[in-house]
Amino acid sequence: MRLSGGVEWALHCCVVLSRGVEEPVPVARLAELYDVSPTYLAKHLQSLAADGLIESVRGKRGGYRLTRSAESITVLDVVRAIEGDGAAFVCTEIRQRGPCAAAAEDCQRACSIARVMIAAEEAWRSALRDVSIRDVADDVDRVAGKGALTRMRSWLAAAPSIGA
Amino acid sequence: MRLSGGVEWALHCCVVLSRGVEEPVPVARLAELYDVSPTYLAKHLQSLAADGLIESVRGKRGGYRLTRSAESITVLDVVRAIEGDGAAFVCTEIRQRGPCAAAAEDCQRACSIARVMIAAEEAWRSALRDVSIRDVADDVDRVAGKGALTRMRSWLAAAPSIGA
Ligand code: FES
Ligand code: FES
Repeated sequence: MRLSGGVEWALHCCVVLSRGVEEPVPVARLAELYDVSPTYLAKHLQSLAADGLIESVRGKRGGYRLTRSAESITVLDVVRAIEGDGAAFVCTEIRQRGPCAAAAEDCQRACSIARVMIAAEEAWRSALRDVSIRDVADDVDRVAGKGALTRMRSWLAAAPSIGA
Repeated sequence: MRLSGGVEWALHCCVVLSRGVEEPVPVARLAELYDVSPTYLAKHLQSLAADGLIESVRGKRGGYRLTRSAESITVLDVVRAIEGDGAAFVCTEIRQRGPCAAAAEDCQRACSIARVMIAAEEAWRSALRDVSIRDVADDVDRVAGKGALTRMRSWLAAAPSIGA
Protein backbone atom coordinates (compact mmCIF):
# COMPACT_ATOMS: atom_id res chain seq x y z
CA MET A 1 0.00 0.00 0.00
CA ARG A 2 1.63 3.19 -1.12
CA LEU A 3 0.32 6.74 -1.39
CA SER A 4 1.11 8.59 -4.58
CA GLY A 5 4.10 10.92 -4.49
CA GLY A 6 1.66 13.70 -5.38
CA VAL A 7 0.42 13.79 -1.79
CA GLU A 8 3.71 15.24 -0.54
CA TRP A 9 3.78 17.83 -3.35
CA ALA A 10 0.17 18.85 -2.90
CA LEU A 11 0.53 19.27 0.86
CA HIS A 12 3.68 21.36 0.50
CA CYS A 13 2.00 23.57 -2.11
CA CYS A 14 -1.09 24.12 0.06
CA VAL A 15 1.02 24.96 3.11
CA VAL A 16 3.12 27.50 1.25
CA LEU A 17 0.06 29.03 -0.47
CA SER A 18 -1.56 29.43 2.95
CA ARG A 19 0.99 31.88 4.29
CA GLY A 20 1.45 35.60 3.75
CA VAL A 21 0.20 37.44 0.68
CA GLU A 22 -2.86 36.08 -1.02
CA GLU A 23 -1.68 36.77 -4.52
CA PRO A 24 -2.13 33.89 -6.93
CA VAL A 25 1.06 32.00 -7.76
CA PRO A 26 1.74 30.70 -11.27
CA VAL A 27 2.48 26.97 -11.58
CA ALA A 28 5.85 27.78 -13.11
CA ARG A 29 6.81 29.82 -10.05
CA LEU A 30 5.79 27.06 -7.62
CA ALA A 31 7.71 24.58 -9.75
CA GLU A 32 10.80 26.79 -9.55
CA LEU A 33 10.45 27.06 -5.78
CA TYR A 34 10.64 23.29 -5.50
CA ASP A 35 12.89 22.71 -8.50
CA VAL A 36 10.41 20.29 -10.06
CA SER A 37 8.88 19.89 -13.51
CA PRO A 38 5.98 22.35 -14.00
CA THR A 39 4.06 19.71 -15.96
CA TYR A 40 4.32 17.26 -13.08
CA LEU A 41 3.32 19.84 -10.50
CA ALA A 42 0.46 21.14 -12.69
CA LYS A 43 -1.12 17.68 -12.67
CA HIS A 44 -1.36 17.67 -8.89
CA LEU A 45 -2.51 21.29 -8.70
CA GLN A 46 -5.28 20.42 -11.16
CA SER A 47 -6.42 17.65 -8.81
CA LEU A 48 -6.53 20.15 -5.94
CA ALA A 49 -8.51 22.55 -8.14
CA ALA A 50 -10.91 19.80 -9.22
CA ASP A 51 -11.73 19.25 -5.55
CA GLY A 52 -12.20 22.98 -5.00
CA LEU A 53 -9.26 23.44 -2.63
CA ILE A 54 -7.38 25.86 -4.89
CA GLU A 55 -8.54 27.95 -7.80
CA SER A 56 -6.92 29.27 -10.91
CA VAL A 57 -7.00 33.04 -11.40
CA ARG A 58 -6.47 34.20 -14.98
CA GLY A 59 -4.60 37.22 -16.23
CA LYS A 60 -1.17 38.78 -16.10
CA ARG A 61 -0.87 38.25 -12.35
CA GLY A 62 -2.75 34.98 -12.53
CA GLY A 63 -1.98 31.66 -10.91
CA TYR A 64 -3.31 29.44 -8.15
CA ARG A 65 -4.54 30.39 -4.69
CA LEU A 66 -6.44 28.64 -1.93
CA THR A 67 -10.21 28.96 -2.26
CA ARG A 68 -10.76 29.16 1.48
CA SER A 69 -8.98 29.68 4.76
CA ALA A 70 -6.23 27.26 5.68
CA GLU A 71 -8.12 26.45 8.90
CA SER A 72 -10.94 25.01 6.85
CA ILE A 73 -8.78 22.75 4.66
CA THR A 74 -7.79 19.51 6.35
CA VAL A 75 -4.85 17.31 5.46
CA LEU A 76 -7.47 14.68 4.59
CA ASP A 77 -9.04 17.06 2.03
CA VAL A 78 -5.68 17.32 0.26
CA VAL A 79 -4.90 13.59 0.45
CA ARG A 80 -8.35 12.81 -0.97
CA ALA A 81 -7.96 15.28 -3.80
CA ILE A 82 -4.84 13.42 -4.92
CA GLU A 83 -5.74 9.84 -4.04
CA GLY A 84 -9.49 9.86 -4.53
CA ASP A 85 -11.70 8.71 -1.71
CA GLY A 86 -11.94 5.02 -2.52
CA ALA A 87 -11.36 2.65 0.39
CA ALA A 88 -7.94 1.00 0.70
CA PHE A 89 -9.55 -2.31 1.68
CA VAL A 90 -12.21 -3.60 -0.66
CA CYS A 91 -14.28 -6.58 0.45
CA THR A 92 -15.13 -8.93 -2.41
CA GLU A 93 -17.49 -11.03 -0.28
CA ILE A 94 -15.26 -14.08 -0.03
CA ARG A 95 -17.65 -15.39 2.62
CA GLN A 96 -20.29 -15.87 -0.09
CA ARG A 97 -18.11 -18.25 -2.13
CA GLY A 98 -17.77 -22.01 -2.28
CA PRO A 99 -19.53 -24.95 -0.65
CA CYS A 100 -19.83 -23.32 2.81
CA ALA A 101 -20.88 -19.92 1.46
CA ALA A 102 -22.93 -17.65 3.69
CA ALA A 103 -26.34 -16.88 2.22
CA ALA A 104 -26.65 -13.41 0.69
CA GLU A 105 -29.48 -12.55 3.09
CA ASP A 106 -27.15 -13.28 6.04
CA CYS A 107 -24.62 -10.81 4.65
CA GLN A 108 -26.47 -7.53 5.12
CA ARG A 109 -23.92 -6.53 7.72
CA ALA A 110 -20.30 -6.19 6.64
CA CYS A 111 -18.08 -9.21 7.35
CA SER A 112 -16.18 -9.21 10.66
CA ILE A 113 -12.91 -8.91 8.76
CA ALA A 114 -14.15 -6.02 6.62
CA ARG A 115 -15.31 -4.19 9.72
CA VAL A 116 -11.87 -4.33 11.32
CA MET A 117 -10.28 -3.04 8.11
CA ILE A 118 -12.86 -0.27 7.72
CA ALA A 119 -12.42 0.85 11.34
CA ALA A 120 -8.65 1.08 10.87
CA GLU A 121 -9.08 3.21 7.76
CA GLU A 122 -11.46 5.43 9.65
CA ALA A 123 -8.78 5.89 12.35
CA TRP A 124 -6.35 6.93 9.59
CA ARG A 125 -8.83 9.32 8.00
CA SER A 126 -9.77 10.74 11.36
CA ALA A 127 -6.13 11.53 12.19
CA LEU A 128 -5.78 13.37 8.86
CA ARG A 129 -9.09 15.15 9.34
CA ASP A 130 -8.01 16.48 12.73
CA VAL A 131 -5.15 18.50 11.26
CA SER A 132 -5.71 21.57 9.09
CA ILE A 133 -3.29 23.16 6.63
CA ARG A 134 -3.13 26.03 9.12
CA ASP A 135 -2.03 23.61 11.87
CA VAL A 136 0.71 22.27 9.60
CA ALA A 137 1.89 25.77 8.68
CA ASP A 138 1.99 26.71 12.38
CA ASP A 139 4.03 23.61 13.07
CA VAL A 140 6.46 24.48 10.28
CA ASP A 141 6.86 27.89 11.94
CA ARG A 142 7.66 26.20 15.22
CA VAL A 143 10.03 23.61 13.80
CA ALA A 144 11.71 25.35 10.88
CA GLY A 145 11.54 28.82 12.44
CA LYS A 146 8.99 31.56 11.90
CA GLY A 147 10.91 32.89 8.91
CA ALA A 148 10.93 29.81 6.70
CA LEU A 149 7.43 29.93 5.20
CA THR A 150 7.41 33.71 4.99
CA ARG A 151 10.69 33.62 3.08
CA MET A 152 9.26 31.13 0.61
CA ARG A 153 6.13 33.20 0.20
CA SER A 154 8.16 36.36 -0.47
CA TRP A 155 10.26 34.48 -2.96
CA LEU A 156 7.10 33.33 -4.75
CA ALA A 157 5.75 36.89 -4.83
CA ALA A 158 9.02 38.36 -6.14
CA ALA A 159 10.05 38.47 -9.80
CA PRO A 160 7.83 36.31 -11.99
CA SER A 161 9.52 33.30 -13.52
CA ILE A 162 10.45 33.42 -17.18
CA GLY A 163 7.52 32.20 -19.21
CA ALA A 164 5.18 32.00 -16.19
CA MET B 1 -4.11 3.89 -2.12
CA ARG B 2 -5.35 0.36 -2.36
CA LEU B 3 -4.54 -2.77 -0.38
CA SER B 4 -3.89 -5.91 -2.36
CA GLY B 5 -6.79 -8.33 -2.73
CA GLY B 6 -4.59 -10.89 -0.99
CA VAL B 7 -5.29 -9.24 2.37
CA GLU B 8 -8.92 -10.39 2.33
CA TRP B 9 -7.91 -13.94 1.31
CA ALA B 10 -5.14 -14.19 3.88
CA LEU B 11 -7.36 -12.98 6.71
CA HIS B 12 -10.16 -15.38 5.81
CA CYS B 13 -7.69 -18.29 5.64
CA CYS B 14 -6.15 -17.45 9.03
CA VAL B 15 -9.58 -17.14 10.65
CA VAL B 16 -10.78 -20.49 9.33
CA LEU B 17 -7.49 -22.21 10.21
CA SER B 18 -7.82 -20.87 13.76
CA ARG B 19 -10.98 -22.81 14.58
CA GLY B 20 -11.55 -26.39 15.56
CA VAL B 21 -9.18 -29.22 14.69
CA GLU B 22 -5.56 -28.35 14.32
CA GLU B 23 -4.93 -30.66 11.42
CA PRO B 24 -3.00 -29.09 8.55
CA VAL B 25 -5.13 -28.15 5.54
CA PRO B 26 -3.83 -28.63 1.98
CA VAL B 27 -3.88 -25.52 -0.24
CA ALA B 28 -6.13 -27.34 -2.70
CA ARG B 29 -8.72 -27.92 0.02
CA LEU B 30 -8.67 -24.30 1.16
CA ALA B 31 -8.98 -23.25 -2.48
CA GLU B 32 -12.02 -25.52 -2.87
CA LEU B 33 -13.59 -24.06 0.25
CA TYR B 34 -13.44 -20.61 -1.27
CA ASP B 35 -13.84 -21.68 -4.88
CA VAL B 36 -10.65 -19.89 -5.90
CA SER B 37 -7.59 -20.86 -7.92
CA PRO B 38 -5.13 -22.89 -5.79
CA THR B 39 -2.20 -21.15 -7.49
CA TYR B 40 -3.55 -17.76 -6.53
CA LEU B 41 -4.25 -18.79 -2.96
CA ALA B 42 -0.87 -20.56 -2.64
CA LYS B 43 0.88 -17.28 -3.37
CA HIS B 44 -0.77 -15.59 -0.40
CA LEU B 45 -0.28 -18.59 1.89
CA GLN B 46 3.41 -18.55 1.02
CA SER B 47 3.57 -14.91 2.13
CA LEU B 48 1.97 -15.87 5.44
CA ALA B 49 4.46 -18.73 5.81
CA ALA B 50 7.39 -16.43 4.96
CA ASP B 51 6.38 -14.25 7.90
CA GLY B 52 6.05 -17.27 10.17
CA LEU B 53 2.29 -17.02 10.72
CA ILE B 54 1.48 -20.39 9.15
CA GLU B 55 3.68 -23.38 8.44
CA SER B 56 3.64 -26.10 5.89
CA VAL B 57 3.49 -29.67 7.18
CA ARG B 58 4.67 -32.34 4.75
CA GLY B 59 3.30 -35.81 4.21
CA LYS B 60 0.08 -37.52 3.30
CA ARG B 61 -1.96 -35.49 5.76
CA GLY B 62 0.14 -32.41 5.14
CA GLY B 63 -0.91 -28.85 4.52
CA TYR B 64 -0.86 -25.50 6.27
CA ARG B 65 -1.60 -24.70 9.89
CA LEU B 66 -1.12 -21.69 12.14
CA THR B 67 2.25 -21.64 13.89
CA ARG B 68 0.86 -20.12 17.05
CA SER B 69 -2.33 -19.38 18.88
CA ALA B 70 -4.88 -17.15 17.16
CA GLU B 71 -4.74 -14.77 20.15
CA SER B 72 -1.12 -14.04 19.37
CA ILE B 73 -1.62 -13.26 15.68
CA THR B 74 -2.91 -9.77 15.04
CA VAL B 75 -4.74 -8.55 11.96
CA LEU B 76 -1.74 -6.27 11.44
CA ASP B 77 0.58 -9.32 11.32
CA VAL B 78 -1.47 -10.73 8.45
CA VAL B 79 -1.78 -7.43 6.58
CA ARG B 80 1.98 -6.92 6.87
CA ALA B 81 2.73 -10.43 5.62
CA ILE B 82 0.80 -9.64 2.43
CA GLU B 83 1.59 -5.95 1.97
CA GLY B 84 5.06 -5.72 3.45
CA ASP B 85 5.74 -3.19 6.14
CA GLY B 86 6.79 -0.23 4.04
CA ALA B 87 5.15 3.09 4.90
CA ALA B 88 2.26 4.27 2.73
CA PHE B 89 3.58 7.82 2.82
CA VAL B 90 7.18 8.26 1.80
CA CYS B 91 8.79 11.67 2.36
CA THR B 92 11.20 12.61 -0.42
CA GLU B 93 12.45 15.71 1.44
CA ILE B 94 10.79 18.25 -0.80
CA ARG B 95 11.71 20.86 1.79
CA GLN B 96 15.37 20.44 0.84
CA ARG B 97 14.78 21.39 -2.81
CA GLY B 98 15.03 24.63 -4.73
CA PRO B 99 16.12 28.19 -3.93
CA CYS B 100 14.48 28.28 -0.47
CA ALA B 101 15.62 24.79 0.53
CA ALA B 102 16.01 23.99 4.20
CA ALA B 103 19.58 23.09 5.10
CA ALA B 104 20.16 19.37 5.63
CA GLU B 105 21.32 20.00 9.21
CA ASP B 106 17.96 21.66 9.95
CA CYS B 107 16.14 18.54 8.74
CA GLN B 108 17.10 16.05 11.44
CA ARG B 109 13.50 15.98 12.59
CA ALA B 110 10.88 14.77 10.13
CA CYS B 111 9.00 17.50 8.25
CA SER B 112 5.73 18.71 9.83
CA ILE B 113 3.81 17.23 6.91
CA ALA B 114 5.57 13.86 7.17
CA ARG B 115 4.83 13.73 10.88
CA VAL B 116 1.10 14.14 10.32
CA MET B 117 1.13 11.40 7.70
CA ILE B 118 3.21 9.07 9.88
CA ALA B 119 0.92 9.61 12.87
CA ALA B 120 -2.13 8.74 10.77
CA GLU B 121 -0.50 5.52 9.58
CA GLU B 122 0.35 4.67 13.14
CA ALA B 123 -3.34 5.12 14.06
CA TRP B 124 -4.21 2.69 11.26
CA ARG B 125 -1.58 0.17 12.31
CA SER B 126 -2.59 0.48 15.93
CA ALA B 127 -6.23 -0.29 15.12
CA LEU B 128 -5.13 -3.43 13.25
CA ARG B 129 -2.71 -4.40 16.02
CA ASP B 130 -5.50 -4.23 18.60
CA VAL B 131 -7.49 -7.05 16.99
CA SER B 132 -6.30 -10.65 16.97
CA ILE B 133 -7.38 -13.44 14.63
CA ARG B 134 -9.09 -14.93 17.68
CA ASP B 135 -11.10 -11.72 18.16
CA VAL B 136 -12.18 -11.85 14.53
CA ALA B 137 -13.18 -15.52 14.78
CA ASP B 138 -15.19 -14.75 17.93
CA ASP B 139 -16.91 -11.92 16.10
CA VAL B 140 -17.74 -14.23 13.17
CA ASP B 141 -19.31 -16.61 15.73
CA ARG B 142 -21.42 -13.74 17.04
CA VAL B 143 -22.45 -12.34 13.67
CA ALA B 144 -22.67 -15.39 11.41
CA GLY B 145 -23.72 -17.78 14.18
CA LYS B 146 -21.59 -20.12 16.23
CA GLY B 147 -21.93 -22.87 13.63
CA ALA B 148 -20.48 -21.11 10.62
CA LEU B 149 -16.74 -21.44 11.25
CA THR B 150 -17.09 -24.91 12.77
CA ARG B 151 -18.97 -26.04 9.67
CA MET B 152 -16.22 -24.74 7.43
CA ARG B 153 -13.57 -26.38 9.58
CA SER B 154 -15.37 -29.75 9.45
CA TRP B 155 -15.74 -29.42 5.70
CA LEU B 156 -11.98 -28.79 5.42
CA ALA B 157 -11.22 -31.83 7.57
CA ALA B 158 -13.57 -34.13 5.60
CA ALA B 159 -12.69 -35.93 2.38
CA PRO B 160 -9.43 -34.72 0.89
CA SER B 161 -9.72 -32.89 -2.38
CA ILE B 162 -8.78 -34.71 -5.56
CA GLY B 163 -5.11 -34.20 -6.17
CA ALA B 164 -4.51 -32.41 -2.89
S1 FES C 1 -16.13 -11.36 3.00
FE1 FES C 1 -14.92 -9.63 2.54
S2 FES C 1 -13.77 -9.31 4.31
FE2 FES C 1 -14.92 -11.09 4.76
S1 FES D 1 9.72 17.28 3.09
FE1 FES D 1 8.69 15.40 2.89
S2 FES D 1 6.81 15.75 3.80
FE2 FES D 1 7.79 17.66 3.93
